[in-house]
Amino acid sequence: MTFRATILTLYPDMFPGPLSQSLAGRAMSEGTWSLDTVQIRDFALDKHRSVDDTPAGGGAGMVMRPDVLARAIDTTAPAEDPRPRLLMSPRGKPLTQAKVRELADGPGAIILCGRFEGVDQRLIDSRQLEEVSIGDYILSGGEIAALVLLDAVVRLLPGVMGNDQSGTEESFENGLLEHPHYTRPTVFEDQPIPDVLLSGNHKKIAAWRRAKAEEITRERRPDLWEAHLQNRR
Amino acid sequence: MTFRATILTLYPDMFPGPLSQSLAGRAMSEGTWSLDTVQIRDFALDKHRSVDDTPAGGGAGMVMRPDVLARAIDTTAPAEDPRPRLLMSPRGKPLTQAKVRELADGPGAIILCGRFEGVDQRLIDSRQLEEVSIGDYILSGGEIAALVLLDAVVRLLPGVMGNDQSGTEESFENGLLEHPHYTRPTVFEDQPIPDVLLSGNHKKIAAWRRAKAEEITRERRPDLWEAHLQNRR
Repeated sequence: MTFRATILTLYPDMFPGPLSQSLAGRAMSEGTWSLDTVQIRDFALDKHRSVDDTPAGGGAGMVMRPDVLARAIDTTAPAEDPRPRLLMSPRGKPLTQAKVRELADGPGAIILCGRFEGVDQRLIDSRQLEEVSIGDYILSGGEIAALVLLDAVVRLLPGVMGNDQSGTEESFENGLLEHPHYTRPTVFEDQPIPDVLLSGNHKKIAAWRRAKAEEITRERRPDLWEAHLQNRR
Repeated sequence: MTFRATILTLYPDMFPGPLSQSLAGRAMSEGTWSLDTVQIRDFALDKHRSVDDTPAGGGAGMVMRPDVLARAIDTTAPAEDPRPRLLMSPRGKPLTQAKVRELADGPGAIILCGRFEGVDQRLIDSRQLEEVSIGDYILSGGEIAALVLLDAVVRLLPGVMGNDQSGTEESFENGLLEHPHYTRPTVFEDQPIPDVLLSGNHKKIAAWRRAKAEEITRERRPDLWEAHLQNRR
């Protein structure tokens, strides 16, 4: 079954962009997933093709009009479309690997890319958009955030990673950052690979990696470490 | 002064990608920032142009070789290059708007895009790469993460946003999610814009927006809310 992504945007030429290459590009050409874009401006109601207007109550910037967006959404994704409707927004729930997996297990996603100051709240409420944030920083629009979300999802679709199904991910999913990696050469600028990794003792190697992952998580991400400890209780 | 970004990647064709359009694209053509890419494979040491090898200690996937990456970095960015050296990686420090601003105030960035399982730790240590994560999810590589970081930085460069300098950002920087937005039409599908926003009373409007921002932050992001309260103490 094909994972179908539909992107509502003012910049359709940004897609598929980087997703036309590498793993995602191959998976797209094999029909594992599809992507289509909808130009929001095509649903404007006036001859100037306006999609935004000044914020009620004043302030900087512009806000995307609810009536124009409603037409775009209702035409593209009628109520019976089973796909989740996402709005990329820094006000959203932070994207997690668990959410990525949930989306990858579903039929696809309809993704509205916000621009300017944001989207009229009445549109978000009436069309039940789920706001998703990729992180605590501000982008120029939702388009690159949508690329992030799709890249994360597509690599989990059946067949995309092949036998290369990553340990990284499982590592992240148990709530720890990953242990350090080493490869050839055995000595790089006088620094050897840690002995234990060359020992052939799989139990010791696993214990070392686990200890390193815990150490790095504790040092770098006390928030993840706390959550990890609570999950173990 | 031009903000100079240099990207080390196996997929140079992914750049500038979406950054060739909209705000970032205009700013690039005006010389506000520049982007060049370096194909890591050009620095391989064998006739197969290998850039990766199996992980020491076993396990899935491949690891990027330190010797090949060292050649790529040393040639592209000699030690005297003042730009920070970043490695996009889920093990990194989470990107924040404060970090984005710090980067935007600097001369540019050298960004290594990881692929496969990751990069040999000895390379990260010896070249003092600063690991940056855009969020707690796994991408197919660092390229789209680099696009995110650059998009966030470029919009803050002088002149890029013009007079449209966003309230969003200040709002995020005070540690709260943004209040809801409304624009025309005044009534959308029987839902009116909240009265207070049409009152013309700027003090009341500011208080309402502040209260909504606090409410939304408390509900959606208890982590940010806690941090916000602590900063006020």
